[in-house]
Amino acid sequence: MNSGTLYLIPVPLAADQINTIPEAVRKQACSLKYYFVENIRTARRFLKAFDTSVDIDSITFSEVNKQNQADVKLLKEWLKAGNEVGVMSEAGCPGIADPGSDLVTAAQAIGSKVVPFVGPSSIFLSLMGSGFNGQSFRFVGYLPVKDPQRTKAIKDLERIAHQQNETQIFIETPYRNNALIEDLVKHLQPHKTKLCIAVDVTAPDQILVTKTLAEWAAAKPDIHKRPAIFLIHPA
Amino acid sequence: MNSGTLYLIPVPLAADQINTIPEAVRKQACSLKYYFVENIRTARRFLKAFDTSVDIDSITFSEVNKQNQADVKLLKEWLKAGNEVGVMSEAGCPGIADPGSDLVTAAQAIGSKVVPFVGPSSIFLSLMGSGFNGQSFRFVGYLPVKDPQRTKAIKDLERIAHQQNETQIFIETPYRNNALIEDLVKHLQPHKTKLCIAVDVTAPDQILVTKTLAEWAAAKPDIHKRPAIFLIHPA
Repeated sequence: MNSGTLYLIPVPLAADQINTIPEAVRKQACSLKYYFVENIRTARRFLKAFDTSVDIDSITFSEVNKQNQADVKLLKEWLKAGNEVGVMSEAGCPGIADPGSDLVTAAQAIGSKVVPFVGPSSIFLSLMGSGFNGQSFRFVGYLPVKDPQRTKAIKDLERIAHQQNETQIFIETPYRNNALIEDLVKHLQPHKTKLCIAVDVTAPDQILVTKTLAEWAAAKPDIHKRPAIFLIHPA
Repeated sequence: MNSGTLYLIPVPLAADQINTIPEAVRKQACSLKYYFVENIRTARRFLKAFDTSVDIDSITFSEVNKQNQADVKLLKEWLKAGNEVGVMSEAGCPGIADPGSDLVTAAQAIGSKVVPFVGPSSIFLSLMGSGFNGQSFRFVGYLPVKDPQRTKAIKDLERIAHQQNETQIFIETPYRNNALIEDLVKHLQPHKTKLCIAVDVTAPDQILVTKTLAEWAAAKPDIHKRPAIFLIHPA
């Protein structure tokens, strides 16, 4: 019998944006004694920011990242014992394009209760703010790094966007953002396709702008090393 | 010069779940004097729930729904005059599968600032909680109502999910939920595909469960008339 619960705890996307996490979520986060986190130091910092009086030392952490695979055996132990367990990533909501989803998959597989909490997702916020058709959309993660696959991927996304009237959403490693913009301006149709560029979502210096490719070509932004989301849609 | 700002204000998905809206968002929502809303009565109720002291009578509302197209001319007037304008839908986040996106499109087109706020999205929360691959996902809205298009759509979604390793997300009119589950059990592969059913997301009676189609076939849930999200992915 699995009486434990897995809580998916969102954290801010940008430093100091604690206000983007609902108060009730911050309270719940600080009440949990078992945590899977991407980075223990970051997790402690967030919990302290949520509530300065949180008893950090009474919490047991297990790291889940590229160096440490999700300790699914430990998760099952904790859940089967009836514990309330938290999952936290480095930024935003766990379970969306991060190592946390393996834990959620395991929890679901053993029939444990899974409770996701409301928090900031740059993918979702940029889709809202893009003005694109929210009826149908697709997130594809990173594009191929090299040609010819890269150019083909860009053109395929545009074709699908137009054929399906479906927003296509993708990301890039931040130090390659400007190069990506060059590629998009080069390969996408200048007047028939719109591009939304969302940068530092929820931060004070957030950029969230939709223009045609022709308009972007005339004024390419410098977003070197800034976390960004890219969305395309028929104009 | 467009000095106005369009704020995208989320509201709860389920009655009384005000705690799912960050405090800072509730404050901002109650400070705005110009609003586009799906339903004026619902909007007033939410604003009063956000802050009982809100001065409702000083707010100008414009309705946007199936009966009333978005008054884009009015939006442009308000924004060009430098006002802070809010958009609110009946539930969840505006700009995702609702009439609000036309307003966002218009605001972007005239170069106004658009600021989406953090709030509950059943699509997003169910994706987090499904345990499916969050690296790549697609939301397609409603499936065709009749056969043969309906069965074809269901099989196409499964094929795409497997070929692309991509979560496919869709919705149904709530009074047809149980019939949809029957169709999914009938047409999807019993052991090679998993289905997540998310019902009344954020409510106390929330269901968010992932199982193989074979497991669902053995114990079909009765979710008649309850708001739900459906997600499929390779097992």
